[in-house]
Amino acid sequence: MRVNRDRLVVIGGDAAGLSAAAQARRLKDARQLEIVVLEQGPEVSYSACGIPYWIGGLVPDRDRLIARTPEQFAAQDISVRTDTRAQAIDLDAGAVVTATGERLGYDALVVATGGRPFRPRVPGLDADGVHGVHRLADGADIRAAIAAGAQRAVVLGGGYIGLEMAEVLQTRGLHVTVVLADPLPMAQLDDDMGERVCEAMGAMGIDVQTGQPVREIEVDADGAVRAVRTDAGSYPCDLVVLGLGMGPEVSLAGDAGLRLGVTGAIDVQRNQRSRSHPEVFAAGDCAQTFHRITGDPAHVALGTHANKQGRVAGSVIGGRAARFAGVLGTAMTKVGDLEVARTGLCTTQAEDGGFDFRTELIEGTTRAGYYPGAAPIAIKLITERGSGLLLGAQVVGGPGSGKRIDVLATAIWAGMTAEELAGADLSYAPPFSPTYDPVTVAARVSSRVERG
Amino acid sequence: MRVNRDRLVVIGGDAAGLSAAAQARRLKDARQLEIVVLEQGPEVSYSACGIPYWIGGLVPDRDRLIARTPEQFAAQDISVRTDTRAQAIDLDAGAVVTATGERLGYDALVVATGGRPFRPRVPGLDADGVHGVHRLADGADIRAAIAAGAQRAVVLGGGYIGLEMAEVLQTRGLHVTVVLADPLPMAQLDDDMGERVCEAMGAMGIDVQTGQPVREIEVDADGAVRAVRTDAGSYPCDLVVLGLGMGPEVSLAGDAGLRLGVTGAIDVQRNQRSRSHPEVFAAGDCAQTFHRITGDPAHVALGTHANKQGRVAGSVIGGRAARFAGVLGTAMTKVGDLEVARTGLCTTQAEDGGFDFRTELIEGTTRAGYYPGAAPIAIKLITERGSGLLLGAQVVGGPGSGKRIDVLATAIWAGMTAEELAGADLSYAPPFSPTYDPVTVAARVSSRVERG
Repeated sequence: MRVNRDRLVVIGGDAAGLSAAAQARRLKDARQLEIVVLEQGPEVSYSACGIPYWIGGLVPDRDRLIARTPEQFAAQDISVRTDTRAQAIDLDAGAVVTATGERLGYDALVVATGGRPFRPRVPGLDADGVHGVHRLADGADIRAAIAAGAQRAVVLGGGYIGLEMAEVLQTRGLHVTVVLADPLPMAQLDDDMGERVCEAMGAMGIDVQTGQPVREIEVDADGAVRAVRTDAGSYPCDLVVLGLGMGPEVSLAGDAGLRLGVTGAIDVQRNQRSRSHPEVFAAGDCAQTFHRITGDPAHVALGTHANKQGRVAGSVIGGRAARFAGVLGTAMTKVGDLEVARTGLCTTQAEDGGFDFRTELIEGTTRAGYYPGAAPIAIKLITERGSGLLLGAQVVGGPGSGKRIDVLATAIWAGMTAEELAGADLSYAPPFSPTYDPVTVAARVSSRVERG
Repeated sequence: MRVNRDRLVVIGGDAAGLSAAAQARRLKDARQLEIVVLEQGPEVSYSACGIPYWIGGLVPDRDRLIARTPEQFAAQDISVRTDTRAQAIDLDAGAVVTATGERLGYDALVVATGGRPFRPRVPGLDADGVHGVHRLADGADIRAAIAAGAQRAVVLGGGYIGLEMAEVLQTRGLHVTVVLADPLPMAQLDDDMGERVCEAMGAMGIDVQTGQPVREIEVDADGAVRAVRTDAGSYPCDLVVLGLGMGPEVSLAGDAGLRLGVTGAIDVQRNQRSRSHPEVFAAGDCAQTFHRITGDPAHVALGTHANKQGRVAGSVIGGRAARFAGVLGTAMTKVGDLEVARTGLCTTQAEDGGFDFRTELIEGTTRAGYYPGAAPIAIKLITERGSGLLLGAQVVGGPGSGKRIDVLATAIWAGMTAEELAGADLSYAPPFSPTYDPVTVAARVSSRVERG
């Protein structure tokens, strides 16, 4: 018994799209709003970030990566259609056309088409044995390659996915070479922090080849990958993993005529509405966002933002004002026992942004020095000269180091100075920190420098 | 070649006193300022917080608990005199009188006499086998009792020291009973959080007897402890550990006529100057401080504050303006694998302070649910009704839970609302958190409630 209810169509059944759908449903029931989610793949609501750990055998079962099923959404009156590809958006008519030619009119549309892994433009990229780490099928393919006896892997890229894949492939017994164009892994870190990561990877037995853009994937007569070639050498392998990061997947949006921003992602207001078509929302890896400190447009592909942005879109569609509050570029990963995290501006970003800043790097331990398991931790802070405002932070260290970035991200988010953070009442107990937590020490050193 | 240089005398050679001495020395060299530290015990600069872990065998060597020796201070021209008891302070003359009758004039005095463990006023307290956990000698005594075959311990008190001692004594193979007057352990937590701690202790095999003030230490004919008796029962034991918390040690200051505050600790301004005698400073466990949220006088015995307050005193003595920024009552501990932390106001404190507030409790996991080692975590937030300002937080959960309190302490310190914290860009990676960190979830639930 449908009486003129509105219809929300969501393109993309992962973090952003489903958060939007779920939030809209919380605010409007099925009599007010029909919700249809179109997902081109066979699954929805899966954790792409978990794929490396499934490959590594830490997650035993693929299905553990799937948070919710279409049936669970159906119970909330959200219709999720898997294996359904949106072929076109007719912005003038307000309709989505599927690959099978079905036209689905919408009153509100959420574009949540996600990201697209960067692929180098080199010969051999389509060879057997070259894999991304984007969809569950990629994980299954890499697992199959390992099961079939792959022995040498080259990981292209030294960012989060590159590091995680290097770790798990080594755990599975493969010889791993990481090949990257940048001079150091983790380009989002300053060089002095990236060097710590590079050294730790070397100490783990991972062969890190830096400053070498890939030139060719060498392929044998059977069409299988044989080696990765750079200007400096050729690295034999039977498995190549693409860990070069993600760009926005905007072909559908671009073809339809939705405005894209300077980052190449869909240009949206802070309430996730398209700047060109206000009845259309975009959220997640396909959407442009902004940096909390600089205000500049930014593109950061991360599940956290996708969830939050989807939620904002769903709130607005549901009739409640909401806005996304921006990103600091907070990110975290680990390689072996080494935890790596960053937030806010790194030195390069602070320079590019025209900030007058200084940096301080401190070294300490994660626990009281006398407590078993105390591990080294290095924290680098970037503060604005004069004001002392915290602009950015980087953490590299042993177990227990990484999550300390959240304290620094919160302080930056709140607009605190290093001196204010140095005074904050952080916790202390010997199994968890020295009397002065390394965060406090870093803040104090930075504020002392500021005071001269 | 001394030419009218000033003399700073510090009474107490631990965190507060030595921080004051070291900071004063940074700002004034030995030609300007003589610094003499008087310590009644045989060691300075030791970690009282580490004593339980030394008893538990996690710290192999007593000397690991000693951060610095008198010789190291001597190298900075700080004269540290151990086994030197200050007997009296002559405030009118500006001199300290030692137990051997020496008069030591001062231009500035730092009173850092520390804390005094609470002792119940019951018969038998002086029996053999009853020990505090305050000085290194206490640790040595308890270690000796274990080595001599102690089999059953009663820990009086269910605060941090009580929990830690219960854990380490059990680790050493003793049967442990914790007897407390409060209805639950960890009285600084709300009941619903304290119950989680109580259950976990029970599951570990620790016998927790609540709501039972101790009435008597039963002593055998040899003068050795035999049992602890309450109104509800008698608990046989050959070792009793006092874990009832710490009050300020102010006998010297009080006798001298320094003004004490409502908490019984020395009344100081925010720059740690005595309110009655501005040439005298007090810092650490003997000094009164103030609560950051309520502004009320507070007494919190904790090494972190002692260090910071000592540093403030040393700065002011060195000629640089400084002030202590207050406490939130942040604290953390663990019992077995259960981590326990709190900051800001608990429900009782919020009620006593006349706040209009609400509470929310969320449950989540420390890591992505599919990642090995994901453990339960519960976070309780207290927020001001209307403003949504964060007032307090409590965390109880598995490994990785506790240090999340620092994010909440920082947010409270900065005056953030739950909604602001919910928007903050906290880190995400499957080995370290679900897509939404439990802190974000707690903040979001609290802000949603606030919005109705």
